[in-house]
Amino acid sequence: MERRRVGILGATGTVGQRFVQLLERHPWFEVAWLAASDRSAGKTYREACAWKLDTPMPQRVAEMVVQPNTPAAAGGALPKIIFAALDTDIARELEPQFAAAGCAVISNSSAFRMTADVPLVVPEVNGDHLSLLESQEVRRASGGYIVTNPNCSAIGLVLALKPLEQRFGIESLFVSTMQAVSGAGYPGVPSLDILGNVVPFIRNEEEKMQEEVGKLLGRYTGSAVDPLSAKVSAHCNRVAVIDGHTECVSIKLKTPATRDEVLEAWRSFRPLDGKQFPSAPDTPVIYTDAPDRPQPRLDVNAGNGMSTTVGRLRPCTLLDWKFVLLSHNTLRGAAGAAVLNAEVLARSGKLPKDAA
Amino acid sequence: MERRRVGILGATGTVGQRFVQLLERHPWFEVAWLAASDRSAGKTYREACAWKLDTPMPQRVAEMVVQPNTPAAAGGALPKIIFAALDTDIARELEPQFAAAGCAVISNSSAFRMTADVPLVVPEVNGDHLSLLESQEVRRASGGYIVTNPNCSAIGLVLALKPLEQRFGIESLFVSTMQAVSGAGYPGVPSLDILGNVVPFIRNEEEKMQEEVGKLLGRYTGSAVDPLSAKVSAHCNRVAVIDGHTECVSIKLKTPATRDEVLEAWRSFRPLDGKQFPSAPDTPVIYTDAPDRPQPRLDVNAGNGMSTTVGRLRPCTLLDWKFVLLSHNTLRGAAGAAVLNAEVLARSGKLPKDAA
Amino acid sequence: MERRRVGILGATGTVGQRFVQLLERHPWFEVAWLAASDRSAGKTYREACAWKLDTPMPQRVAEMVVQPNTPAAAGGALPKIIFAALDTDIARELEPQFAAAGCAVISNSSAFRMTADVPLVVPEVNGDHLSLLESQEVRRASGGYIVTNPNCSAIGLVLALKPLEQRFGIESLFVSTMQAVSGAGYPGVPSLDILGNVVPFIRNEEEKMQEEVGKLLGRYTGSAVDPLSAKVSAHCNRVAVIDGHTECVSIKLKTPATRDEVLEAWRSFRPLDGKQFPSAPDTPVIYTDAPDRPQPRLDVNAGNGMSTTVGRLRPCTLLDWKFVLLSHNTLRGAAGAAVLNAEVLARSGKLPKDAA
Amino acid sequence: MERRRVGILGATGTVGQRFVQLLERHPWFEVAWLAASDRSAGKTYREACAWKLDTPMPQRVAEMVVQPNTPAAAGGALPKIIFAALDTDIARELEPQFAAAGCAVISNSSAFRMTADVPLVVPEVNGDHLSLLESQEVRRASGGYIVTNPNCSAIGLVLALKPLEQRFGIESLFVSTMQAVSGAGYPGVPSLDILGNVVPFIRNEEEKMQEEVGKLLGRYTGSAVDPLSAKVSAHCNRVAVIDGHTECVSIKLKTPATRDEVLEAWRSFRPLDGKQFPSAPDTPVIYTDAPDRPQPRLDVNAGNGMSTTVGRLRPCTLLDWKFVLLSHNTLRGAAGAAVLNAEVLARSGKLPKDAA
Repeated sequence: MERRRVGILGATGTVGQRFVQLLERHPWFEVAWLAASDRSAGKTYREACAWKLDTPMPQRVAEMVVQPNTPAAAGGALPKIIFAALDTDIARELEPQFAAAGCAVISNSSAFRMTADVPLVVPEVNGDHLSLLESQEVRRASGGYIVTNPNCSAIGLVLALKPLEQRFGIESLFVSTMQAVSGAGYPGVPSLDILGNVVPFIRNEEEKMQEEVGKLLGRYTGSAVDPLSAKVSAHCNRVAVIDGHTECVSIKLKTPATRDEVLEAWRSFRPLDGKQFPSAPDTPVIYTDAPDRPQPRLDVNAGNGMSTTVGRLRPCTLLDWKFVLLSHNTLRGAAGAAVLNAEVLARSGKLPKDAA
Repeated sequence: MERRRVGILGATGTVGQRFVQLLERHPWFEVAWLAASDRSAGKTYREACAWKLDTPMPQRVAEMVVQPNTPAAAGGALPKIIFAALDTDIARELEPQFAAAGCAVISNSSAFRMTADVPLVVPEVNGDHLSLLESQEVRRASGGYIVTNPNCSAIGLVLALKPLEQRFGIESLFVSTMQAVSGAGYPGVPSLDILGNVVPFIRNEEEKMQEEVGKLLGRYTGSAVDPLSAKVSAHCNRVAVIDGHTECVSIKLKTPATRDEVLEAWRSFRPLDGKQFPSAPDTPVIYTDAPDRPQPRLDVNAGNGMSTTVGRLRPCTLLDWKFVLLSHNTLRGAAGAAVLNAEVLARSGKLPKDAA
Repeated sequence: MERRRVGILGATGTVGQRFVQLLERHPWFEVAWLAASDRSAGKTYREACAWKLDTPMPQRVAEMVVQPNTPAAAGGALPKIIFAALDTDIARELEPQFAAAGCAVISNSSAFRMTADVPLVVPEVNGDHLSLLESQEVRRASGGYIVTNPNCSAIGLVLALKPLEQRFGIESLFVSTMQAVSGAGYPGVPSLDILGNVVPFIRNEEEKMQEEVGKLLGRYTGSAVDPLSAKVSAHCNRVAVIDGHTECVSIKLKTPATRDEVLEAWRSFRPLDGKQFPSAPDTPVIYTDAPDRPQPRLDVNAGNGMSTTVGRLRPCTLLDWKFVLLSHNTLRGAAGAAVLNAEVLARSGKLPKDAA
Repeated sequence: MERRRVGILGATGTVGQRFVQLLERHPWFEVAWLAASDRSAGKTYREACAWKLDTPMPQRVAEMVVQPNTPAAAGGALPKIIFAALDTDIARELEPQFAAAGCAVISNSSAFRMTADVPLVVPEVNGDHLSLLESQEVRRASGGYIVTNPNCSAIGLVLALKPLEQRFGIESLFVSTMQAVSGAGYPGVPSLDILGNVVPFIRNEEEKMQEEVGKLLGRYTGSAVDPLSAKVSAHCNRVAVIDGHTECVSIKLKTPATRDEVLEAWRSFRPLDGKQFPSAPDTPVIYTDAPDRPQPRLDVNAGNGMSTTVGRLRPCTLLDWKFVLLSHNTLRGAAGAAVLNAEVLARSGKLPKDAA
């Protein structure tokens, strides 16, 4: 099968690098266009990018020239599938331009996540919300649209929550995170702030987690998403970890469930046929019996970084159950999530066609 | 004033070293006797101890000979005031022996904290519970007794909770901790377990926090302690920090309180006359307005390591209020707590007299 | 091809775990027998082992029962190929027993590295030294023998030095290391010793580096090894890194060489036909032009953890050239080195035959 | 005694903060004026400064208004003593302006360290070089001048070297550093670059160390400094430490010395009468017998952060002796060094007088 041409907006940043890494061997997509800010445009990717991943920069991409980040500059070379890894303010400005130019913008930014007609999707959780994109005005005008994936701290959480919501309903939950520094990009968190330290604050993070969980676990009504009414209270912290967000959760269910029923809900959670989607993990939620897991250093790469690992299920004195979860914040929580969204859009025939 | 002779049980461990450090310049107490396990007994303290503090080992103590850890071996040299920093199992065996020998055992161990007639005390929180020691049988027989301070993760928490309990009452609370490695002693946490990592488990820690908070905030009835009925749910985690436990708290009060009322409760909390007690901080609870504090690296030594720093007071979507607190786990949370307990016992005339 | 049965001595330790991980998919060898100390013997591997690698414990091995670590206990089940990951004192006692029982003992221990008739080998550097094993008395008696690989800090160094020694000769060198904590095993380095810290001492490490380099770069005379006469001065330090030893080197060559000649020596260094040996890296020495590399976090897994990465070649004001190198201490520097030694022994027909 | 008014240039940076911290209780100097870049000017120090020290920001200074960093803007309020903590490029522009305005500029920048008529001074090492300032043209014109202290990595080294140079002469030396992140300022080193990592490169650092050592140990001829001719080869590395540069040294002496003679040279090194200078440590070089010290976490604050701790003296196979040293990079290596320079200038009567 011929691979479809795709582009990356914000290609030199932390998430942009993950897109490059993930797409290099992707069976369906091929990086054909890279864009970044004016500072980088015109340089080769090798020159423009401070590569921070522990696999080598792909040779082919290294020699590509970084383009200006506008559809106009791309002209006829503009791919119809754009992975976007932009800061919020820039995303707010640029993503609509690319949608207006007829592109499917598969975005990792928070700019439009909560916009009513923009799907905020994790395929295993709420793939049906993708239909929302048909409501976007730009879709009718140009064929383009914007689809988003959640914040890196919300995505692992909703994977663990979805099977519980399905079976028992969720009344309320408390989540306290310990988040990796890669979530802040590069240069991101100064070492003087995090070595031997904890920073109990990440700007806007608690708000994002609380509202995104509602939309992700909400019900698609045919034209809109009716958010889950559960109360969510988040405490977000930064810790001295490179990759992997760890989250402590206490949860109250609508219907009481035994320990075995909760475990069974997770174990039987196989919402996608993994064989159909190259980036889908065999097991989106892995439960570990080890008393002191999950741990970022040991578990972050489970399912090629696309599975959420859950452990320590035990009763909560205040709500019903407590547990710990871990998920990879730049794979499952960012670039991998967007790539999986694109795969689902591809299978469902919703990706724009290239010009003949 | 002549300084009273005191002894240290478990003198070579992490908390034992803090006792040595704190007592070296104490105006009331002087280390006259050190004991440790058989492996160390007979050596000088310098030889026996892998000193891990960032101030030099006091010269005088370095040359003292470590004694066997039994009252019998000490004979007439046994001080009547014993600071104990023993592992639980050993504490369970040895502390009663020293009490039976007429000593005030000021213990940092968990062995007897929940025993009905043993005071579990933080002077600023429940100094009145010290009277419980009069109920101990050994007290009548020998004049000795056991007094304990809480777990290192509970102590900072109850300091922040006490002003709220006093004014508004506490209905329930969540707490999620990020605890320093020094809390596990030496060698303690292997570096392979914690570098670039989080371990979401500390054995028995959640149970201790939950039950100790109840006793500490309980009401002394004249002969026993009636524990606080609030529900407490704890999640305990180990992070890559040397000293300082950070805790995220969500709390429901019995009587609703505004943000200003909560802040005022903390600001006006001055339960002890600091001038009377050398180790009491001027301000046991310090509130910081900085949006991203408290942080272990910056705030752990507030009040000479004896103050709890609180920050980020904000509404909780699920309970009433959320905040973050930080306290030094081997000073306020261990050795400093025990020394302050001894100071309060000294002022109240409850320390046993030395033989004439 | 049928895979040959192999055993692992010291299977539960840090290096033992790497053997299990590497051998799980090895095309020539299959783990058929695991042994560890009395504390572990009789348990399944899953029960006995605190697995600290970031890939899952292989299912098949997890269910194997750990055996006592003597040849007698193994009886007829004893494989003829034994990978040994034992502490020095225990290796000194046990390895000769397994050799006497007819096994090829492929050892990672330092116990016999400097013994005159024991090969100390890195295949790319001094594969010809393997012939020394024919001089071992035990070889004639039982068919067994002992072969060793170097200390984890020496192995990356000699890979970088060999091409220079070959072309220019080495007169003298300084090396200052920054070594990962995994080199000390588990529990190994306490976190209180290394978080936010450097420990400028590793017991016996400087001595081992200095003498092993001499033997490794020495000349095999047909019956013995004539060590390289170059003076080597080592400074060894422990730093807060999980895997990967970084080394700063200053070197004086016997024949002056230009920068290009040195680079060319490294680039053209292809001593083994990688296709013939599953664990041999395509490029044992990789030179990087980046001004601030190699770095453990980014480069440790180069060549599947079997390549040494070299960078920052620049003139030395005191000797001739300075450079930095990095190598993976538990792959290239321990288990991977031993497995590669076994592959070379297999190709050369020196592995003992299994009983018919 | 009345304290003299002093100013701080670059007051909001990492070293500027150390100046504020050190000067707050200084018996001779009082911070009367603070300046920083345009971004900060006009704000209070509390608003302008991201305070990163573990003691509280002094209340009095917090409320001072940050001034523009030109003498003209200060007008009559300009103190005659200016501590400068500026980046090199800015220092090159601004420091001469302040000298021309009649100020003693006590600089921590590298801009003028190697300028022939600018003293580069560590008082215990080459206090006599201060006379160089009399050669500065600006001195005759305005009474002002520039005095500098060395790079943070050179200063601990020359303290350890000076006693050896005095007694035995130094022929050559090799130094390999492991430097703390605070040396790079704030935000400085990104956490993604240093967590669990080593960066074997610090821009211009090796060059600075090599040339500054020569000037510092050089001989003042009455009008110029004749640099030490010893060959110095430096390898500079960044490690995950907050404060404290650790350095591994191999040294060749001109006159051979026994271990005892070297130790005696260090022990008897008392170049300054500490009672006369508030910031001078009692013992500028402390030798430790512990086999694994000095370590940043344990020793960085020796002598209030103004002493260099030396350990592990042992023979070098290549030169004569090897040892390890540690010194605090933002106290002894930056702000403390400058304050001590000012104290020596004050005692010697070289500080400009305030206008009457």
